[in-house]
Amino acid sequence: MIPDNYFDDLTIGDVFESEKKTITEDDIVGFAEQYDPQPFHVDKDAAAKTEFGGLIASGFHMLSASFGLFFHSRVIEKHNLGSPGMDQVRWLRPMRPGDTIHCRAEVTDLQPSKSKADRGSVWMRHDTINQDGDVIMTVSCIHRLRRRPQNDA
Amino acid sequence: MIPDNYFDDLTIGDVFESEKKTITEDDIVGFAEQYDPQPFHVDKDAAAKTEFGGLIASGFHMLSASFGLFFHSRVIEKHNLGSPGMDQVRWLRPMRPGDTIHCRAEVTDLQPSKSKADRGSVWMRHDTINQDGDVIMTVSCIHRLRRRPQNDA
Repeated sequence: MIPDNYFDDLTIGDVFESEKKTITEDDIVGFAEQYDPQPFHVDKDAAAKTEFGGLIASGFHMLSASFGLFFHSRVIEKHNLGSPGMDQVRWLRPMRPGDTIHCRAEVTDLQPSKSKADRGSVWMRHDTINQDGDVIMTVSCIHRLRRRPQNDA
Repeated sequence: MIPDNYFDDLTIGDVFESEKKTITEDDIVGFAEQYDPQPFHVDKDAAAKTEFGGLIASGFHMLSASFGLFFHSRVIEKHNLGSPGMDQVRWLRPMRPGDTIHCRAEVTDLQPSKSKADRGSVWMRHDTINQDGDVIMTVSCIHRLRRRPQNDA
């Protein structure tokens, strides 16, 4: 995996796989108590009685944990100018205590900026995958990356 | 504000305003150290040298904090069956230390389930607004809610 890419270093179809992380019950409850305290995220007994059949992570926890793995992989880093947004966030399956997840990011489009010559937009499809190989979340995310300076080709 | 709505209690155009919350530097750095450790989210000095001119919150922190306020408002609660996803997440302006945010959610569409008579999908536009009245993030989110039982009309 190539770390710290400029816009110009990426090609449509490039795929990056993150490291793996096991999500604990404490992770799930801790995140949800602060940000998404619905019963099926924070209360084991109440969660068992829902159609989820037990505790599941907040979708915002899934996003944060999965993109945390992506940023930890340093595919984009110093030349990242921040993201304008995401589309088609889909929570396909629950993330449960003990699940081991990783992120697979594929470059789906590259558009140099029309107004600013020093940057471009990168579209990536981010899949979050569990230990069974199930895709539990997909996201189409836009990243703005700096272009490689011409004297640094 | 009506708490704990069934699908049938909502009408297109309904608007719900959350309480307000002030975001501290510790909140921003603490979230980002765990989930999004990019320099402009965790390192005050490095952030000052970026085009953001100082620390800004992770977009995932903005999502989590804003939806945290929404769920805390109890607009949807016991009859919430979880969300299949979100679209058009747009990070329009930074969230900075000391900003006081709230969430404004508007019902934009209601669709009874075709396959399950006990539920329906609610589309809401979630705007996150700061102390200056600036909309700093918009999201179109889908919530699945239980329908009101017929003997409970």
